[in-house]
Amino acid sequence: MNELAPITHGDPIAPVILGVTSILAFAVIGRVAARKLRQPTVLGELIMGILLGNVAWYLGFDLITVLREGPRVFDVVNLTLAGAPIEVVANSIFGPDSAPEIVRIITGPHGGQVMQVAQIVDAFSRYGVIFMLFMVGLQTNLDEMRDVGADSLRVAIIGVVAPVALGFGVTRLLMPDMALNSDLFVAATLAATSVGITANVLQEMGRDKSREGHIIIGAAVGDDILGLVLLAVVSGIIVSGSVNITEITTVIVVSSIFLIAAGTLGPVIVRFAASVLGRLDIVEAKMFTSYLFVMLLAWMANLAGLATIIGAFAAGIVLHDSYFREHVGEADERVVSIRELIMPLEVILVPIFFILIGIQVKLETFLSWPVVTLAAGLLVVAIVGKLASGLGAFQSKSRWVVGIGMVPRGEVGLVFAAIGRTLGVIDDSVFAAVALMVIVTTLIAPPWLKLALAREDGERAAPVNPP
Amino acid sequence: MNELAPITHGDPIAPVILGVTSILAFAVIGRVAARKLRQPTVLGELIMGILLGNVAWYLGFDLITVLREGPRVFDVVNLTLAGAPIEVVANSIFGPDSAPEIVRIITGPHGGQVMQVAQIVDAFSRYGVIFMLFMVGLQTNLDEMRDVGADSLRVAIIGVVAPVALGFGVTRLLMPDMALNSDLFVAATLAATSVGITANVLQEMGRDKSREGHIIIGAAVGDDILGLVLLAVVSGIIVSGSVNITEITTVIVVSSIFLIAAGTLGPVIVRFAASVLGRLDIVEAKMFTSYLFVMLLAWMANLAGLATIIGAFAAGIVLHDSYFREHVGEADERVVSIRELIMPLEVILVPIFFILIGIQVKLETFLSWPVVTLAAGLLVVAIVGKLASGLGAFQSKSRWVVGIGMVPRGEVGLVFAAIGRTLGVIDDSVFAAVALMVIVTTLIAPPWLKLALAREDGERAAPVNPP
Repeated sequence: MNELAPITHGDPIAPVILGVTSILAFAVIGRVAARKLRQPTVLGELIMGILLGNVAWYLGFDLITVLREGPRVFDVVNLTLAGAPIEVVANSIFGPDSAPEIVRIITGPHGGQVMQVAQIVDAFSRYGVIFMLFMVGLQTNLDEMRDVGADSLRVAIIGVVAPVALGFGVTRLLMPDMALNSDLFVAATLAATSVGITANVLQEMGRDKSREGHIIIGAAVGDDILGLVLLAVVSGIIVSGSVNITEITTVIVVSSIFLIAAGTLGPVIVRFAASVLGRLDIVEAKMFTSYLFVMLLAWMANLAGLATIIGAFAAGIVLHDSYFREHVGEADERVVSIRELIMPLEVILVPIFFILIGIQVKLETFLSWPVVTLAAGLLVVAIVGKLASGLGAFQSKSRWVVGIGMVPRGEVGLVFAAIGRTLGVIDDSVFAAVALMVIVTTLIAPPWLKLALAREDGERAAPVNPP
Repeated sequence: MNELAPITHGDPIAPVILGVTSILAFAVIGRVAARKLRQPTVLGELIMGILLGNVAWYLGFDLITVLREGPRVFDVVNLTLAGAPIEVVANSIFGPDSAPEIVRIITGPHGGQVMQVAQIVDAFSRYGVIFMLFMVGLQTNLDEMRDVGADSLRVAIIGVVAPVALGFGVTRLLMPDMALNSDLFVAATLAATSVGITANVLQEMGRDKSREGHIIIGAAVGDDILGLVLLAVVSGIIVSGSVNITEITTVIVVSSIFLIAAGTLGPVIVRFAASVLGRLDIVEAKMFTSYLFVMLLAWMANLAGLATIIGAFAAGIVLHDSYFREHVGEADERVVSIRELIMPLEVILVPIFFILIGIQVKLETFLSWPVVTLAAGLLVVAIVGKLASGLGAFQSKSRWVVGIGMVPRGEVGLVFAAIGRTLGVIDDSVFAAVALMVIVTTLIAPPWLKLALAREDGERAAPVNPP
């Protein structure tokens, strides 16, 4: 039996390091390039991922091929280990065209290693999303939203309802054969607004403290929350498998109970953890409390049939540095903030998520007309729907500016699309169409917003110009 | 084929979150308990791991059973995927006693999931060790060693030579059937001294700035470096498979080239990376540079036949915040130090390493007399060898104090043992004996050192006491 014994030379983590670090290095190159071209960094990572996924795949890198197919490859491994013949399993999951390639990789001499690295890249990217949404939650100031009030709320609601309704219509129209669940999910990906990208432009133009600035930021935060509620409802429907009023009511009730519990019991849990961990250094106490709390809520959200990111977001809303005040004194409380402690994890893990999304965009799907029309249709309604949201800004003259500011989808749209892919309701071609929509909206919004702001400044400046 | 299609309800990361977070939570409990009992935190995590590994395993938690067997289980998975019958593979790796249990778990309904979680826990713990040694490197001040000079150097050298020679003798004597490679490796685990634990006690007793304090800290740093060189030589011999003078020379030459290259080319690479990433935020630039550099060196060390941790340690020695001075100005250079940025990763990952080490300590191995004698023998030579190192402190009257201060093995001894286990030269029973040696030396050193320091203070104070 000796020929079966594996010859392990060196540290088994070495191939993992090589795989994960190479992927991160490509993400960093994409990020630096984007910064150089004055584009949002997420675009650099996404486009680098698309290049990697479509060029390196063509050149035959097994790891990229596996990552490109997403978590379905792991299903092949799991079912094979459970005793099913690998050819049969691969065929049933991937169809006769792709199955032989997948079987070749898994059963190849480095199959186990490739799968291990792929699983770890996949896990890192999913942890990345959790930390990203936790950070979004941490930075969400509910009071700020209250201040901008009615205008923000109206913009937020129109900004969710209009693109989702239009998106649902366009998907039904262009893809009449697609399941209702998938239409709903695609429509939901149109709900998001990326706060970061618009906030950056506003800051650069010195308009972040303006009224429109506040309305946009407030509405974008509102869209995040409404979008997550929508995601909860839609994914709840998909998991339960049927669309009826009882199911929808159940999901809404469960989500509400979860969020209320997170908001009321959360602080109790955090206070307890902070007091138990008070004996440790403040860095350890804050880090362990934050990490364990985020993961607890993410896991419980999943248990309740919601997305893990909803738990992570809720954890971010609940957690505050002030919980640690008693243990360190008010002066020290912010010496190391939770935000600063979680940021290093986010900095390393989130680029892995974005580049993985890029890798999974199969450009060859655009060789089919229906996919091109769907992508074009989604793009149009994504832009029109958010522009319409500007109409909600009754008390502002800059409705146009507000509408444009709401256009970029950025990271949250991608997170939704990735969840849909994992749930099996978004296939390769629809995933590619959604990714294109995210890329284009994120690409055009900043220059468009700058142009609109500059024109507005010009108009305002005109009357006081020399005669 | 529809019965083969997996029914994925919810996020596939949820079981990973549950597994990893539970294990971390137990580690945190162990850490808090240790702090409460005024013991080194590593002991808390280790003992909690032993409890978990021996009680939860008895109760039948599959994840713990898999983690307990270490990376060999992954070999079963890999060879099975490559087409070998799982029963045959498991039998050849685990023997007829344990094989059926392993096969049951892997082929069970949650087999794929358990293996995935185990692989991620394993990867996290290995990343943890890499970051831990990187931090040790970052905190190693070579100048400080130079200051204490000859005394420290002599203590360090005796502190490596004496326990290693004694350890080799005792292993040969008590385990005459064990391969020479294994004897060498076990002996090497005795070389380490844990700086952290002794430094803590010295600080607590207000003696960290004393002459003995400096000698001990300097010698402990020296032991880390000498120990890593020894590890390089020993693991090089094991990987090459033969003990002869050519092999040993090759390993020493390769290690030297690697370390010289890291010391000379490293700064060039870091400067280049810092300038390319200069466009990003300082947090991102430092984080990406540090992460990519550590991983590059860890991977290259493995390529050169050395342990990945040697690369990580070298990266820590080379990296400095001052490389980023040009990009941020001298004032901002330390706004966020590399140490602060890497610490959150270390805080989360290192406890997973220690608890995993504990889980892998199989208490049932102590039911055999040879293992008990080996453990006792190792413990005696581990203590005697390090006490002897105190003799090297020619210019100090506190040779006894210096010797006791060198006794605790702490984390580095465990890292060596874990590497030996991965390389297949340290089996379950020897691993348990080494872990026991680490636990006992770490447990007795702090109170013993306190006692010795107090007695010394008493003697010094005596002459000036009232008559």
